[in-house]
Amino acid sequence: MTQRPNDTRLSVPRDRDNDYTPEAARMRREFVSGRTGADLSHTGSFSFDPAVTRGNIENFIGVAQVPVGLAGPLRIEGEHVSEDVYVPLATTEGTLVASYNRGMRILTEAGGVKTTIHERFMQRAPVFHFNDARGAREFAGWVESNLEQIRMAAEASSSIAKLSHVERYAVGPMLHLRFNYETGDAAGQNMAGKATFAACEWIAKSYPGGARYTLSGAMDTDKKHSQLNVLHSRGARVIAEARIPSSLLRERVGVAAEDLFRARLNSFAGSVMAGSANNGMHAANALAALFIACGQDAANVAESHAAMTYVRLEDGGETYYWSITLPALIVATFGGGTGLPTQAECLDILGCRGKGKVRRFIEICAATVLAGEVSLAGAVVAGDWVESHEKLGRNRG
Amino acid sequence: MTQRPNDTRLSVPRDRDNDYTPEAARMRREFVSGRTGADLSHTGSFSFDPAVTRGNIENFIGVAQVPVGLAGPLRIEGEHVSEDVYVPLATTEGTLVASYNRGMRILTEAGGVKTTIHERFMQRAPVFHFNDARGAREFAGWVESNLEQIRMAAEASSSIAKLSHVERYAVGPMLHLRFNYETGDAAGQNMAGKATFAACEWIAKSYPGGARYTLSGAMDTDKKHSQLNVLHSRGARVIAEARIPSSLLRERVGVAAEDLFRARLNSFAGSVMAGSANNGMHAANALAALFIACGQDAANVAESHAAMTYVRLEDGGETYYWSITLPALIVATFGGGTGLPTQAECLDILGCRGKGKVRRFIEICAATVLAGEVSLAGAVVAGDWVESHEKLGRNRG
Amino acid sequence: MTQRPNDTRLSVPRDRDNDYTPEAARMRREFVSGRTGADLSHTGSFSFDPAVTRGNIENFIGVAQVPVGLAGPLRIEGEHVSEDVYVPLATTEGTLVASYNRGMRILTEAGGVKTTIHERFMQRAPVFHFNDARGAREFAGWVESNLEQIRMAAEASSSIAKLSHVERYAVGPMLHLRFNYETGDAAGQNMAGKATFAACEWIAKSYPGGARYTLSGAMDTDKKHSQLNVLHSRGARVIAEARIPSSLLRERVGVAAEDLFRARLNSFAGSVMAGSANNGMHAANALAALFIACGQDAANVAESHAAMTYVRLEDGGETYYWSITLPALIVATFGGGTGLPTQAECLDILGCRGKGKVRRFIEICAATVLAGEVSLAGAVVAGDWVESHEKLGRNRG
Amino acid sequence: MTQRPNDTRLSVPRDRDNDYTPEAARMRREFVSGRTGADLSHTGSFSFDPAVTRGNIENFIGVAQVPVGLAGPLRIEGEHVSEDVYVPLATTEGTLVASYNRGMRILTEAGGVKTTIHERFMQRAPVFHFNDARGAREFAGWVESNLEQIRMAAEASSSIAKLSHVERYAVGPMLHLRFNYETGDAAGQNMAGKATFAACEWIAKSYPGGARYTLSGAMDTDKKHSQLNVLHSRGARVIAEARIPSSLLRERVGVAAEDLFRARLNSFAGSVMAGSANNGMHAANALAALFIACGQDAANVAESHAAMTYVRLEDGGETYYWSITLPALIVATFGGGTGLPTQAECLDILGCRGKGKVRRFIEICAATVLAGEVSLAGAVVAGDWVESHEKLGRNRG
Repeated sequence: MTQRPNDTRLSVPRDRDNDYTPEAARMRREFVSGRTGADLSHTGSFSFDPAVTRGNIENFIGVAQVPVGLAGPLRIEGEHVSEDVYVPLATTEGTLVASYNRGMRILTEAGGVKTTIHERFMQRAPVFHFNDARGAREFAGWVESNLEQIRMAAEASSSIAKLSHVERYAVGPMLHLRFNYETGDAAGQNMAGKATFAACEWIAKSYPGGARYTLSGAMDTDKKHSQLNVLHSRGARVIAEARIPSSLLRERVGVAAEDLFRARLNSFAGSVMAGSANNGMHAANALAALFIACGQDAANVAESHAAMTYVRLEDGGETYYWSITLPALIVATFGGGTGLPTQAECLDILGCRGKGKVRRFIEICAATVLAGEVSLAGAVVAGDWVESHEKLGRNRG
Repeated sequence: MTQRPNDTRLSVPRDRDNDYTPEAARMRREFVSGRTGADLSHTGSFSFDPAVTRGNIENFIGVAQVPVGLAGPLRIEGEHVSEDVYVPLATTEGTLVASYNRGMRILTEAGGVKTTIHERFMQRAPVFHFNDARGAREFAGWVESNLEQIRMAAEASSSIAKLSHVERYAVGPMLHLRFNYETGDAAGQNMAGKATFAACEWIAKSYPGGARYTLSGAMDTDKKHSQLNVLHSRGARVIAEARIPSSLLRERVGVAAEDLFRARLNSFAGSVMAGSANNGMHAANALAALFIACGQDAANVAESHAAMTYVRLEDGGETYYWSITLPALIVATFGGGTGLPTQAECLDILGCRGKGKVRRFIEICAATVLAGEVSLAGAVVAGDWVESHEKLGRNRG
Repeated sequence: MTQRPNDTRLSVPRDRDNDYTPEAARMRREFVSGRTGADLSHTGSFSFDPAVTRGNIENFIGVAQVPVGLAGPLRIEGEHVSEDVYVPLATTEGTLVASYNRGMRILTEAGGVKTTIHERFMQRAPVFHFNDARGAREFAGWVESNLEQIRMAAEASSSIAKLSHVERYAVGPMLHLRFNYETGDAAGQNMAGKATFAACEWIAKSYPGGARYTLSGAMDTDKKHSQLNVLHSRGARVIAEARIPSSLLRERVGVAAEDLFRARLNSFAGSVMAGSANNGMHAANALAALFIACGQDAANVAESHAAMTYVRLEDGGETYYWSITLPALIVATFGGGTGLPTQAECLDILGCRGKGKVRRFIEICAATVLAGEVSLAGAVVAGDWVESHEKLGRNRG
Repeated sequence: MTQRPNDTRLSVPRDRDNDYTPEAARMRREFVSGRTGADLSHTGSFSFDPAVTRGNIENFIGVAQVPVGLAGPLRIEGEHVSEDVYVPLATTEGTLVASYNRGMRILTEAGGVKTTIHERFMQRAPVFHFNDARGAREFAGWVESNLEQIRMAAEASSSIAKLSHVERYAVGPMLHLRFNYETGDAAGQNMAGKATFAACEWIAKSYPGGARYTLSGAMDTDKKHSQLNVLHSRGARVIAEARIPSSLLRERVGVAAEDLFRARLNSFAGSVMAGSANNGMHAANALAALFIACGQDAANVAESHAAMTYVRLEDGGETYYWSITLPALIVATFGGGTGLPTQAECLDILGCRGKGKVRRFIEICAATVLAGEVSLAGAVVAGDWVESHEKLGRNRG
């Protein structure tokens, strides 16, 4: 099969000024419809000027319209949010919103979710390579001695990024450096990349004899789950906790705290055996739905879905203490897709739009995750899990 | 803080027949706007009758409009697609489409991507618990002897799901069973759950003395990355491969094959040290964008982003063999969000809408992932990574 | 530095018949003493004819004399041992024997340890490599169709090894096969290697067009911990369980069951965060000491120390159910070092020498591991951990 | 079965002064021989006064005589050893010494092994538990502010241990602290435990309102492999490197560098898929044999066997750069079993007995591991692996 000569038409118009116009989008839709027969009338239905998408997309043809449902109220007793919130969830998976809604009701009736942020950093991790391990070790010492200048070089590249600390990992003739930045209300991958690039260039220029590096040596670990993220956080490390009366659980999901606890213990064993990124249930569901609704990078579900559940019975079994620790929650309230029309609106629902709001948003994400754990765990143990999918979800088979 | 009496208004109308109407959606938007001050006019702009979302969402208020860009052409020499395709990617991350586009051009010029599906199953993994390990072992033997009846019980619940095999994992006084189903063109989580529930109920009824179980013991591992998924697949196990001339790489990304290879070796070391779910680069980016565009469950990025890269130099360094193995790619062309308006259109662009198309879609996903690896790896090594974000992405800092 | 001309003297006598004589050992000791000044009189003190070490060592110079202590009695209610046993432990770590002894007393007073073997296999895992993934997939189908002949080829190489099943793992253009053998009372690494080699040679000869392979592709995983071993066992998968009255724990270690349980829950969280091979405490201590005493391959501590602890409170907290699952316990009662003089004697203490005894030995190993868990967990929670090292161990600082 | 009344005889004599006498050992042997019929004459043959084992063993009955073979010379170009050494290996596994011997010859002829120690610490990791995550976070801040006093409290407990740094890991309502000590020539587990206990007691007394802790929360991770150890070292992080001419490999093992390299690449894929603690071959073999010979704690094979191999072809394939990084090598030249008779002699062979020698011993261990990698990799690729076991090892089936 040979390449067709008119293939290049896709990227027309090349004129950058006209790239983000309704006309350019229409031309691209016509091009691809002509080739594939696809009717793109829904995709071509959007409520904004495509110019707003510059910086968010290339070869724009229209939009995916993803249904948004509202769950809540969810009472959160956080440090950046202390009220009842309604949570917009963009998903195509039936029962998801209903399930989170149920969990939110239980948590709210239990007095709310306590949320705590431990730390928040964004990383870029270059690898420096040498002739041998001693070269790498000598370099490690030099880096330690020159941290202040490295910081200055990094921070000069950005008005926001602040270099917090640099981790070091030695392997063979290489030294991996993992730069950790505070990145304000942005997720910060790009500013971390830019700042680290500036730091590396300064290092390469300043290190006696020079230093060869690659800007990522896979220890960031960007868009990938890793045990390193679990240990040292990527994005925010946030914990959501609740104390739920057993009587409330019996009333709302039909199971006592001790039954839920026993099932969780059993699942811990399965989780360890499987080598799972998350010994809880389905943080990914809440996060994907929140991320799509609120203009986050949905690819970060890869890192963000990692979680550690810690539970215990208190008061002789009358209270169920439930916590979930998200070690790598990557979100933003500024930059990326947060300013796009529907995305900004959904952030507005949460009171999380723009600067100074990212910690509020982090706490809401964590509390929402916990609501899903409570609801699904209850459903699995109570045995109504399959049935609720039958009632609310599409019958797929 | 006490719960406000009118909180219940969110779920109005309770009348199920009127739940999925424009009016119900508008009332919910007004409710939440009144409480939060959020203007939801863009979210309320959708091009379809909300009735189509029944089974996909609850408490529908409108849509997230996620920009879709088109990348391609990408030549694929698969077993279910053998042509040039254009790929719709829904994302808010600047440079993503451009980067995949570049990788597709390289792969297409190199003769295309070869794609191979090894197997495809969907799982549900209940745990059976006993008084002691011998109880679990005895049960394991009984399960083996009664597999045929278990299969019949499972398959009776669904016209599609076919039980392929059941894995067994023993720990303490428990036995985890991992049921593997062929699920047609659906992703199959729900039908796998339903069939396994039917099987478990039959087991509980038929096993002498009865058997207690929980429908999930965390070894599914649903919405979570795990080493188990890497070993035994969840969804599809698919491999994308290409042989790229070093001269082409030099021309398109400015680096020779051996430079890319060396950087990959270095990254392998970083990846192992980090305990990463993926020793490649950013499969999650392609998958999240494809999933949102094409009505997939974006939460499955958690499982699907796992990957194993295997590369080697051939022909004395003149050819770069590049493969990526996705062991847990979870997609559907039927059911879930695949029938929604824009989602169906994007599947149409790929020729992947509806029954009989899921393997074609799997191959396209894998080939797209490989395109992103080629492009980003090239950019990182060539040193133009940061710069392209500067040019095309939003300046976030 | 140049190599000295008389370096070759080390391997004298080259005459194989005289290699395992006291004289040859003495000559080697003199050689190395002359070079290093080391007095080797203790190393040269052994109570047997060196000829018995043929097949166990090369360049024999003498012996390490490792102190052996006796712990017990330990009551085991297994399927291959149902009595009180005394356990010989070879170690140089003070307090180890005393600690296991304490745990054994508690377990014995609690009615003994129940032990259950789920399965036992030894593996060799060659990798077959092809031009592309389709080549690997086609090969996988052929292997499935020819399993019976592959089995015959494998088993022809050994009078003992029986091929149980072959796992398959696909990655890139490769197919890893993991051959699982029953190996009688031997650990079986060598017979598994030999049988797999025979099978691979038959495959290479019989597969249309031939098949290239490497006898190990690192999925065995020999002498290495792996999640794969945890899932699919290497050596024996054995579980030790006990139900311990809280009153007994209070009496013997000064802590109630619920305190131990709470500490274990906390440790589970730490273990998951650390990415640990064992969410219990110190199986390696029991195993290393048993392995050295009983002629096992101490390098297999690498695989064998993996474990999953599962605990729960029963009877309203009055009983502590404690189990530990060892998924990769590699031991033998025949072959290897089991026939050497002191090693055979220590196996005799356990009634585990020779053919037909390996399952008894497996059960004793597992029960001993559990004794150490009970004792150390008690010490850590009771706060007398550091003190016992002070009293019984060497003061090292 | 009831417990026999004379069971207590095992620990006779209770008189501590007479516990470590030949007579006490003999009485214990007679006791156990009487119960089991085991002849313990070899076990009872030792060349030293049992009094020397006080602090190393309890309930001493005699010794395991483990054969020691000598391998070498091995040329090491380290920082604490720069000469040819002969290495005593205690093992019962046939071919092991011969295989290491072959690898040492190759490495020596290639100019020797370069060894580099990056860092060395011993850990104890208590967990502090609070009512909620905020309690844990507040505590984390207090710890940071009081590090100097914590250090003083820790170091007051020991004349050797120096507290280097304290890692912090938050999960749920807990904070895990991982104390890192420099421990001189001792392995240091006990002094690290003692110093951390002292630090924790000071913390519990000084923290406003008090702090509850458990001395280990499973993040040490003592006697267990973990990803945490791989990242942050436990014991020594040491790298052994060599550059081996392809011509030498062809001559000595019959395979070219590029064949070895290709096989290693293939194994990397298998290793990642298996979730292996070591992407090399068999570090555990060298370490177990060295540990037994030299009075190390053989249980630390669990941690120490982890390794990362990094290889590359240089000079157009004419040179094979081979490195192995051991991130968790736990050894001592003082304390523990290092002063016992044969153990001290074997340390003398290496010039590693006593104070000031631990870094020399670390380098020798790492270089020996590399020798085994070279030899076994060569054997596997050359296809003579199975055959050498046939010739030198016991025929086990």
